[in-house]
Amino acid sequence: MNERRKCAVALLLIDVVNGFDFEGSERLASDAMAAAPNILALRERAHAAGIPVTYANDNFGRWRSAFRAIVAACSDPSQPGSKVSQLLTPSERDYFVLKPRHSGFYGTALELLLEQLAVEKLILVGFATNICVLFTASDAHMRGYEVIVPSDCTASNTPELTQQALDHMRVVSSARVVAGAAVDLAQLSR
Amino acid sequence: MNERRKCAVALLLIDVVNGFDFEGSERLASDAMAAAPNILALRERAHAAGIPVTYANDNFGRWRSAFRAIVAACSDPSQPGSKVSQLLTPSERDYFVLKPRHSGFYGTALELLLEQLAVEKLILVGFATNICVLFTASDAHMRGYEVIVPSDCTASNTPELTQQALDHMRVVSSARVVAGAAVDLAQLSR
Amino acid sequence: MNERRKCAVALLLIDVVNGFDFEGSERLASDAMAAAPNILALRERAHAAGIPVTYANDNFGRWRSAFRAIVAACSDPSQPGSKVSQLLTPSERDYFVLKPRHSGFYGTALELLLEQLAVEKLILVGFATNICVLFTASDAHMRGYEVIVPSDCTASNTPELTQQALDHMRVVSSARVVAGAAVDLAQLSR
Amino acid sequence: MNERRKCAVALLLIDVVNGFDFEGSERLASDAMAAAPNILALRERAHAAGIPVTYANDNFGRWRSAFRAIVAACSDPSQPGSKVSQLLTPSERDYFVLKPRHSGFYGTALELLLEQLAVEKLILVGFATNICVLFTASDAHMRGYEVIVPSDCTASNTPELTQQALDHMRVVSSARVVAGAAVDLAQLSR
Repeated sequence: MNERRKCAVALLLIDVVNGFDFEGSERLASDAMAAAPNILALRERAHAAGIPVTYANDNFGRWRSAFRAIVAACSDPSQPGSKVSQLLTPSERDYFVLKPRHSGFYGTALELLLEQLAVEKLILVGFATNICVLFTASDAHMRGYEVIVPSDCTASNTPELTQQALDHMRVVSSARVVAGAAVDLAQLSR
Repeated sequence: MNERRKCAVALLLIDVVNGFDFEGSERLASDAMAAAPNILALRERAHAAGIPVTYANDNFGRWRSAFRAIVAACSDPSQPGSKVSQLLTPSERDYFVLKPRHSGFYGTALELLLEQLAVEKLILVGFATNICVLFTASDAHMRGYEVIVPSDCTASNTPELTQQALDHMRVVSSARVVAGAAVDLAQLSR
Repeated sequence: MNERRKCAVALLLIDVVNGFDFEGSERLASDAMAAAPNILALRERAHAAGIPVTYANDNFGRWRSAFRAIVAACSDPSQPGSKVSQLLTPSERDYFVLKPRHSGFYGTALELLLEQLAVEKLILVGFATNICVLFTASDAHMRGYEVIVPSDCTASNTPELTQQALDHMRVVSSARVVAGAAVDLAQLSR
Repeated sequence: MNERRKCAVALLLIDVVNGFDFEGSERLASDAMAAAPNILALRERAHAAGIPVTYANDNFGRWRSAFRAIVAACSDPSQPGSKVSQLLTPSERDYFVLKPRHSGFYGTALELLLEQLAVEKLILVGFATNICVLFTASDAHMRGYEVIVPSDCTASNTPELTQQALDHMRVVSSARVVAGAAVDLAQLSR
């Protein structure tokens, strides 16, 4: 095993392909759209640095659909989340797991993929901060991963809930909470 | 399969056998001791109603120890949590799983035990509200259990953290948050 | 919950989309091609009866690929398994999970999907009998599913290994081993 | 992380504490008693070499019982397996997990314990070869562990089933099958 790769970091995009297709999602869709360029910038930096990018995305109950079909459905202009989904459409080089529930680790191959990539640190971005990001952070911490959550690369129904969830992850899951631009990928790769 | 038992409820005691053996645990130990009689009252009512009681308790890294030895260690007068551990010592009729991490579901037989008991609703009590209770509530909700968290049967480092965690479980894990005395076991058993 | 659906059965196709791209696979590819029409016939009967069909298929280490791309790769004429893969190409109405290892249950959402479909009985077909079919049968039995393995809908490196694996599943995983045509879908659906 | 410990090996005793309390268990109990001294010798060598010994033992449906109580019940002279259970009674220095089903990995903390002990190789011994030993070997292989199965430290209902199961584990789970006395603990510890 390549010991250098044992220190590897991965960027995990949680439910960024998302129609936000539910009553009262305007605020979340709007705040997610504010976060989306920060997420995109981080993804581009990860690509440039050779850091693996993985989408852990809800299947939204579409058990028969491939991720591509889910991306298409969420990118449909009728969806409140269409712009976010379009901006953050996965590239061919990105990994993905379709998750059936809140946490990226539950009922998916995420842990096996990360093990194969020799990942020990996870940068978590996406939506919603207090639900799927928080559940995934809990599961990551419980499994021994270091967790980093860029505060401007996530959103939830209200800024208050976002802040509380960030505080919770910092205190309980030992997450480092920093601005996306302040994430030092070179340092994390060491 | 007995369809009536499919609606069964279980009481889950999370890390109530606990030395609280860490720097700055005085407040938690004190608030836990305030909650302990409420937990005991609920356990007695569960016993009387024939509702299964399960301890999901940390092994505190003592991988070679039986639960009994952990109870003894946590009940030692040298431990800040000794009084809580003594008051809530498990009885012979109670089930238990020793958990190696935060959530009662991770690395334990809890899900299989609940399935065998045909449990669909979980009353969660114990410590700390924002850590092991919250992680267990998340995992329970993700697995489709109904979650009830009696607000006076739990504690964390500060009342603010307890309240935030209760709010979080109510919003995100659809937990019903009520006083322990208000938990209607007869209704939940139906 | 719909009690009638609780008795539901599902057909599970294990690694039938398969290039058999390894040294010495001729015999397996040939025996798999003999089994393929029996599998297809069973799948058609399942479709007609409204019984859910799920592909539990290896991702062959292609973590970035959708199932469609894996089907295309395995169906390439250069592959020893191309004819089997072409004949058994999934239809739009079929479910699928991409599995990273031997068992269909490990690192996948299979259990959650089956739970949602209220499935309690699993008809297992595919390749190889003594590896991925056997591992999946073990995991299914351990989780309480009834297991049915049609003996002419599976193959392995040699007929002896196939027979031993069928015997093993019958004895250890309580599998019913019958010919594909003898599988009574109407009875299993009850 | 201590790289030397990453190569560690562990000895796993599967269902050696066992009443064999079922119809027709005479042959298994007798063959298990023949294997028991070989298991004991290997356990003593593991103790001497500082290699962790873990019991992965069925709870036999006794969800309220500690391992000690299960050992006592299985060691009762009324049990066909009493002599095996007495001879192989766990010592204070041994780890244990109580498993609710066939595989030592399912519904237990075994994987987390092995991860903490930095174990990468597993010596599997116990009963029955074709059921719980085989299921555990499958799960171990699927998780990337090297598997060693000493052929004279295991037994099942008949010598034929034992031999078939050993062959299966050798072929499918890449198990090394050797005599217990030939297991080179020093070499495996490197």
